Amino acid sequence: MTQVLALGNYSDTDQAALKRDLDPVFVKTASDIAALPEKDRSRITALAFMGHHPFSGGEMHLLPNLGLIANYGVGYDAIDVSAADARGIKVTNTPDVLNDDVADLAVALLIAQGRQMIPASEWVSSGNWAAKGNFALARKISGGRAGIVGLGRIGRAIADRLTGFDMEIHYSSRREKDTPGWTYHADPVSLAEAVDYLIVALVGGPETENHVSKDVIAALGPCGIIVNISRGSTIDEAALLDALENGAIAGAGLDVFLNEPAIDPRFLKLDNVVLQPHQGSATVETRTAMGQLQRDNVSAFLNGKALLTPVN
Amino acid sequence: MTQVLALGNYSDTDQAALKRDLDPVFVKTASDIAALPEKDRSRITALAFMGHHPFSGGEMHLLPNLGLIANYGVGYDAIDVSAADARGIKVTNTPDVLNDDVADLAVALLIAQGRQMIPASEWVSSGNWAAKGNFALARKISGGRAGIVGLGRIGRAIADRLTGFDMEIHYSSRREKDTPGWTYHADPVSLAEAVDYLIVALVGGPETENHVSKDVIAALGPCGIIVNISRGSTIDEAALLDALENGAIAGAGLDVFLNEPAIDPRFLKLDNVVLQPHQGSATVETRTAMGQLQRDNVSAFLNGKALLTPVN
Repeated sequence: MTQVLALGNYSDTDQAALKRDLDPVFVKTASDIAALPEKDRSRITALAFMGHHPFSGGEMHLLPNLGLIANYGVGYDAIDVSAADARGIKVTNTPDVLNDDVADLAVALLIAQGRQMIPASEWVSSGNWAAKGNFALARKISGGRAGIVGLGRIGRAIADRLTGFDMEIHYSSRREKDTPGWTYHADPVSLAEAVDYLIVALVGGPETENHVSKDVIAALGPCGIIVNISRGSTIDEAALLDALENGAIAGAGLDVFLNEPAIDPRFLKLDNVVLQPHQGSATVETRTAMGQLQRDNVSAFLNGKALLTPVN
Repeated sequence: MTQVLALGNYSDTDQAALKRDLDPVFVKTASDIAALPEKDRSRITALAFMGHHPFSGGEMHLLPNLGLIANYGVGYDAIDVSAADARGIKVTNTPDVLNDDVADLAVALLIAQGRQMIPASEWVSSGNWAAKGNFALARKISGGRAGIVGLGRIGRAIADRLTGFDMEIHYSSRREKDTPGWTYHADPVSLAEAVDYLIVALVGGPETENHVSKDVIAALGPCGIIVNISRGSTIDEAALLDALENGAIAGAGLDVFLNEPAIDPRFLKLDNVVLQPHQGSATVETRTAMGQLQRDNVSAFLNGKALLTPVN
């Protein structure tokens, strides 16, 4: 008899749905796998995977009959796809269903940073408005030049939204894409020089590590705002922190960080950032859709049908 | 010799520009006018007005040769225009230059409330993310049905932005307007019944007082979000507070209140609101443009030219 393994910190809703549909063995982290009896491990043919901690050949080796890793999320940079390929393991993800939520948050991060919405909210809640008068003037966001780093599905959803804000759209990506007149830059430094806001929508993984480099950040300049809803790894975080601390850029709206959730404490001392706890796709509606798509991929695999959203 | 009077709490920048262009007498509030010598008061022919405290016939009576009230802001509900008419006083405002900023804030208030961005930010800054794990799931905003109450220039700028978020747009206004297929409701209760989000973009003043009534709020229902960037007076605030306290609606994003800045302390106890200190147009860029337009109206009046943006 085959068996599904569910790895990760699933919500109660997702856990109940997994139990109902696939009756899996549940583990919290990859390090729990080694503790399972060998007999149980060799029964596992499909893994419902959730999380950002690396899952590589070593972990796969513990599951000798594994044929599928169904990732919960569009970004599967935690999974070593080469190692999976080498073992004939298929990998799936949950694309598209989360584009809207992530793009919504990206736009709101940009406006919230530029318009100082969090300190403005504190100005009201602290009683300062009544006691001390008007809050300081902020900066206008509409009408600026936006640069999308990585024009995949999420990047495009962000750009589509920003056109409603009378923005000039620029983008960088591996190759020029079919767009409604948006300006392509092969080089992210050239992109950063051309825009007021840099919105990072890259995939994660080694190929994009520090893609938004110290030079890109410097090219954006002291009036620039960086928004990141991709992965902490896509930006040179030390350079970003330096730039935020010394005013080399104006501010940042960040949903993702290195070493989440134990993020660099330097972020917490800044007054020119809006920080979110990696909640780009964290709505009830979207997480429900992501869980469904993950389980549908597992079911398709178990029933010998075509995978819905394979990545390898 | 004629003289300009500048009334209000101007920023240093605006104050310097007023001094440079019009060399006015400065007063903070309308009650300071009576303290000016009669000789000085009778010299005043134009008033550069800023603020939300009522300016009515009594104040106008103190300035017997007043011919213009140039309001700083698009909303001139503080000025008794009938009383001005009766005295042959022209009134101007500063429309259009602030549409973008107000619309930006409206969209961000909607997303920030739905996505719980302020408590999510606190989840990061308090260290709860690292200590306690994931932040609670929020709700999806894209793809919902938005109802714009008052489809003037600002309402339209908001609707234009929301179309990029894959929203179905409904609106109410005194009469049906030419739109790209948006759904008209003559009655705000019908509008509220049809939508998930109600975004109030009415003009202020007695005609729209409590336009978003208890019945409208009830019609929106327990999943509804209200955003108000217009005036506190346009919503029945006691009914709004009741609805927020007892869950009759889901939440609100509010930039305007009755009795600003001494707002009702019940607002500060709510966990389902995003509160802003009436900063819809409060960016350096837009306030500069508003100040310029106010001064241009005064200059046009003093030089006997056509007013740029008259309201009566």
